[in-house]
Amino acid sequence: MRRPIITILTDFGTKDHYVASMKGVILGIDPRCHLVDISHEVSPHDIEEGAFILLNVYSCFPKGTIHLAVVDPGVGGPRKPLLIATENYFFIGADNGLFSFVLRKEKVKQTIALTNERYFLPSLTSTFHGRDLFAPVAGHLSLGVEPKAFGKAVDKWKTLRFRDPVENRGKLTGEVFHVDAFGNLISNIGEKQLSRFAENYPIVVKAGHATVHGLRKGYWEGKKGEAIALIGSGGFLELSIREGNASRRLRVEKGDPVEVISVRP
Amino acid sequence: MRRPIITILTDFGTKDHYVASMKGVILGIDPRCHLVDISHEVSPHDIEEGAFILLNVYSCFPKGTIHLAVVDPGVGGPRKPLLIATENYFFIGADNGLFSFVLRKEKVKQTIALTNERYFLPSLTSTFHGRDLFAPVAGHLSLGVEPKAFGKAVDKWKTLRFRDPVENRGKLTGEVFHVDAFGNLISNIGEKQLSRFAENYPIVVKAGHATVHGLRKGYWEGKKGEAIALIGSGGFLELSIREGNASRRLRVEKGDPVEVISVRP
Amino acid sequence: MRRPIITILTDFGTKDHYVASMKGVILGIDPRCHLVDISHEVSPHDIEEGAFILLNVYSCFPKGTIHLAVVDPGVGGPRKPLLIATENYFFIGADNGLFSFVLRKEKVKQTIALTNERYFLPSLTSTFHGRDLFAPVAGHLSLGVEPKAFGKAVDKWKTLRFRDPVENRGKLTGEVFHVDAFGNLISNIGEKQLSRFAENYPIVVKAGHATVHGLRKGYWEGKKGEAIALIGSGGFLELSIREGNASRRLRVEKGDPVEVISVRP
Repeated sequence: MRRPIITILTDFGTKDHYVASMKGVILGIDPRCHLVDISHEVSPHDIEEGAFILLNVYSCFPKGTIHLAVVDPGVGGPRKPLLIATENYFFIGADNGLFSFVLRKEKVKQTIALTNERYFLPSLTSTFHGRDLFAPVAGHLSLGVEPKAFGKAVDKWKTLRFRDPVENRGKLTGEVFHVDAFGNLISNIGEKQLSRFAENYPIVVKAGHATVHGLRKGYWEGKKGEAIALIGSGGFLELSIREGNASRRLRVEKGDPVEVISVRP
Repeated sequence: MRRPIITILTDFGTKDHYVASMKGVILGIDPRCHLVDISHEVSPHDIEEGAFILLNVYSCFPKGTIHLAVVDPGVGGPRKPLLIATENYFFIGADNGLFSFVLRKEKVKQTIALTNERYFLPSLTSTFHGRDLFAPVAGHLSLGVEPKAFGKAVDKWKTLRFRDPVENRGKLTGEVFHVDAFGNLISNIGEKQLSRFAENYPIVVKAGHATVHGLRKGYWEGKKGEAIALIGSGGFLELSIREGNASRRLRVEKGDPVEVISVRP
Repeated sequence: MRRPIITILTDFGTKDHYVASMKGVILGIDPRCHLVDISHEVSPHDIEEGAFILLNVYSCFPKGTIHLAVVDPGVGGPRKPLLIATENYFFIGADNGLFSFVLRKEKVKQTIALTNERYFLPSLTSTFHGRDLFAPVAGHLSLGVEPKAFGKAVDKWKTLRFRDPVENRGKLTGEVFHVDAFGNLISNIGEKQLSRFAENYPIVVKAGHATVHGLRKGYWEGKKGEAIALIGSGGFLELSIREGNASRRLRVEKGDPVEVISVRP
């Protein structure tokens, strides 16, 4: 039988005991399962950043994977703990919008508010639902417990607005959505939207003081130190500097505008 | 059969080859075992910090788990390499106090000084017992080798003093024991000691220039930016700032005092 | 049957989705395999650093391990994707010299340029061969696909020069090859070369403003704060400061010279 996979994404960092506590609890329930870290370096309490990282990676995993994600500044408060079953995956975490971007792409089959204490640790705290509530639910789900056993179906959940780029007077304006470890500037401008906008005409991309002509295919194109634009591996328009850090060199950060102009004859 | 679990805690960081070397050695001996990282970001040579992280997490793992911990500034020197079997777990590491806090809670069954070279790598160095001595012992233990096969029983080991809080003239004075990745200030004042001291009267907690009234249940309570006190997930009194970094904002660090006053009519 | 092991080394960091994407793809192809992180903190685009980390760790893993390594500033460009089968291991990555140091020690049996698209993701991008090309090849190799099925044999590959130490007028001059997380200064002077040079006479080691007499056996020797020299766990001459950071205290960094003098009567 295939070993179940549980991925874990948090803003816990990797110095403290928090992530390992969750893993210990899961393995105590389902010792067969394969645990895979997505990231524990989501900026503290940054739900949107967590949502974006998850969007870029969740579908690389095989069908049936359980994605456990804890970026949960409201832990212990009124927000609901959720299990969302889509056609392909399971998502477990707080109802705070963390799954919003993923759910623009996945078809939801069932959403359950986690209320059945039978599947929580007996010593449930108000401070660490990752360990006491979400991890054991993930473990039991991995063992084969039916989603509906964990609580009641709900039909509403919190959604973060994905700030879509705006088209106005021949200009497409988006923003930097994520700066990756290389300093690449990943925008919220998707590949499809970009090609609809540009209609095969040449484009010019602007961010900070950089003006970049045309789209390249890969990071290796352009001279060392030159800013280039390309479609990144997540399907978004990205600015990069060959073997350099675009964010630092262009002084552009998360949230800063990215503009595209379509050059027509 | 259940796959054995070996956890690993070190001060090695994750950039260098050190942690992976240990994993390679273990998997060469027992390829079935499940390796789980606790933390590799213990501050270099900080045995006490390692001991505190281990205390907070070890009991989340199922019985029989092997906890391999290497924070070992004296590697290759006269300190003994140990295997400690308690009623629930195995602990492998240097005799330098790293298991002190855990052993305040666990009942020791057997302590073995690791001397049997048959279970070490043939190329034992004096610089990397994590790879050459502790990892192979963990692998063989995981395979089912009896603890006593690894060396001789000893009945003494080094103990770090856990600095217990002091009660004096209606004031309970502890200290910040750990600052976590969120900046939460985790003290050495345990939940039981606190409730014995306060006897259901209201409390006031002081750290740095902050004075906090009463205990909250979760991090989400209090206004954004307000300092609150609560019992953290490890059972210790903790100061936190909602969606903020308490250590930075209050300018309080590890070792700084935390005072509790019980307000009586 | 033994579970196959795939190690992963990259310069991707652990915040972004990149490493987890590779793992998801591999587990979708071979769910049995054991994934082990070597390091994801290779300095961005630093092929030589990646090569050195790999050199220190690859042989700790059991025979048959697949080492997947992606430090690939030329991704999508003309460099070839390679699979190298040696007598003991498999290495998968770009033909940019990343395996150079390992291949000084391993006997190559077969080198394949990865061209068979059947084993790539259907949605191959030019920006993320880690996920779209190298990971699926590793997964299929782990499943038992023959090396030659992935492409054509080649007999040349790119080699980084290992800068060997130079002996001149009774002085052996090397350089700092790597600074580890403790601040230890690991040189390119190997144990064998050093003992051939010194011929059992006492040595003096110089780096920065430090002059160190003799070789110690372990980090614990010497007084706190004193600079010492020893053969590190990778077999190279190393400078260290007991419970301190040698790089910071001696102001010596990667690339700086390390000199050895042999003191003869």
